[in-house]
Amino acid sequence: MPLWYNEEQTEGVSFGIKIKEQILSEESQFQTIDIYDTYEFGKLFTLDGLVMLTEKDEFIYHDMIVHVPMAVNTEIKNVLVIGGGDGGTVRELTRYNSIEKIDMVEIDEMVVRASQKHLPFTASKLTDPRVNLFFEDGIVFVKNAQNSMYDLIIVDSTDPIGPGEGLFTKEFYDQCFRILTSEGILINQHESPFYPQFSKEMKRAHNKIKNIFPISMVYQAHIPTYPSGHWLFGFSSKKFHPLEDLKSPRWEMLKLKTKYYNSDLHLGSFALPTYVKEMLEEEE
Amino acid sequence: MPLWYNEEQTEGVSFGIKIKEQILSEESQFQTIDIYDTYEFGKLFTLDGLVMLTEKDEFIYHDMIVHVPMAVNTEIKNVLVIGGGDGGTVRELTRYNSIEKIDMVEIDEMVVRASQKHLPFTASKLTDPRVNLFFEDGIVFVKNAQNSMYDLIIVDSTDPIGPGEGLFTKEFYDQCFRILTSEGILINQHESPFYPQFSKEMKRAHNKIKNIFPISMVYQAHIPTYPSGHWLFGFSSKKFHPLEDLKSPRWEMLKLKTKYYNSDLHLGSFALPTYVKEMLEEEE
Repeated sequence: MPLWYNEEQTEGVSFGIKIKEQILSEESQFQTIDIYDTYEFGKLFTLDGLVMLTEKDEFIYHDMIVHVPMAVNTEIKNVLVIGGGDGGTVRELTRYNSIEKIDMVEIDEMVVRASQKHLPFTASKLTDPRVNLFFEDGIVFVKNAQNSMYDLIIVDSTDPIGPGEGLFTKEFYDQCFRILTSEGILINQHESPFYPQFSKEMKRAHNKIKNIFPISMVYQAHIPTYPSGHWLFGFSSKKFHPLEDLKSPRWEMLKLKTKYYNSDLHLGSFALPTYVKEMLEEEE
Repeated sequence: MPLWYNEEQTEGVSFGIKIKEQILSEESQFQTIDIYDTYEFGKLFTLDGLVMLTEKDEFIYHDMIVHVPMAVNTEIKNVLVIGGGDGGTVRELTRYNSIEKIDMVEIDEMVVRASQKHLPFTASKLTDPRVNLFFEDGIVFVKNAQNSMYDLIIVDSTDPIGPGEGLFTKEFYDQCFRILTSEGILINQHESPFYPQFSKEMKRAHNKIKNIFPISMVYQAHIPTYPSGHWLFGFSSKKFHPLEDLKSPRWEMLKLKTKYYNSDLHLGSFALPTYVKEMLEEEE
């Protein structure tokens, strides 16, 4: 009998991936970690039965969560990553020589260890000398961090259920604002606009952030293995506008080869469908 | 036992929708037609077991296949639709008072009759007095049509397997070119770039078209119920460039309410991911 991974992406909608074998299944203090080898997607990594990444399409998520802010401010030096235990976000960040320090705060050390063992394509740069790993709660970490420490914070979290929940609160966004420099940018994964289960959270998060940051916009990407395939990211900023301050020529001079991101797509990704724009304008 | 519709979107990848009940299942001369009522997507219409549309997300496909060319040439008068038996493309076209004639050529009359009975949300405008329905092979229809008949041809077809196959050939595109006016535009659904099964067809079709039309570009949309959720359309044209000739102010004066399409998104939809751009530049 062939084995299938099946995820109920939202009530009444399922997504299935045929698997070659299960490579890992373990319970951490926080969640269930599973890794599979699949036919179409290469390695598949799930937390509590939800797709975090696949080897085939992770480049889309990681391109968009990293290169969008980096192309708006090419002089970013100090970065904080919250979550992101698979290492993909750090991998893309380490490609910038201008970055001097990357603090990564992942609540679940077992996720990092599992990724280092089984997902080297994302995790291999976690040993970069600029990277400092902290295995603790991101909410506590930002509360204890000094003012104006970071040029960029990337919240690479799970959905706002379980360990990720506190990363979608006003208190957390307030602390992010405080520990960002006057040129600071906050990027967070922003859920899907399509299914109400996700768009409700997306609207709530966006309403909180836009009351804190002077610039607060949303951009999108095609991520085939996430619910609906239509995924959003939040770009919140104290000074830089994601379109007006885009440094395309300077970014292109870095000659970073990317499979998804490019400067035209950067601009295009902020052009949202009408129903998404209307959703973001609604108050809660 | 709850019933699920399950589609193997590409080998080793399945998409499932929980259904309330099956409304219709019939065999036409050409294909199997099924219509279901579902929990999350409202009505679901499939041909040969592949999703053609759902009530919840059909607005995306129909917005993008119609409003993109109409906003580039707001003076389009004569339109030919090949396929599109569900009526959604015609529905969007009939919103333009400037359009004088819509010839719709659908090979399978049973698709139109089933849609008129069960999918009124897309099919209700097929009775518009400007619409002429032809139940015949689109390939034969274009071969017999006079020169310079149409300002716009929309190929709203199934995949290039089964009845849709001939709509992806050089001969067909040559005929389309011939029967378009000197300002003519050809739009066709262009498959997905993500899974090789589809992207192979997409590249083949694009290579053929770009040797015929002076302007030949590709744009994208998020369509959650199509394989990978990342779907492409071809914009091929004798005169008008889809970006440089976009008539945003004139289109916006029409005050057509759209849920997906808007002028910014029009521009953004042509900004393709790097891997898709590279794919389109490759020769076969």
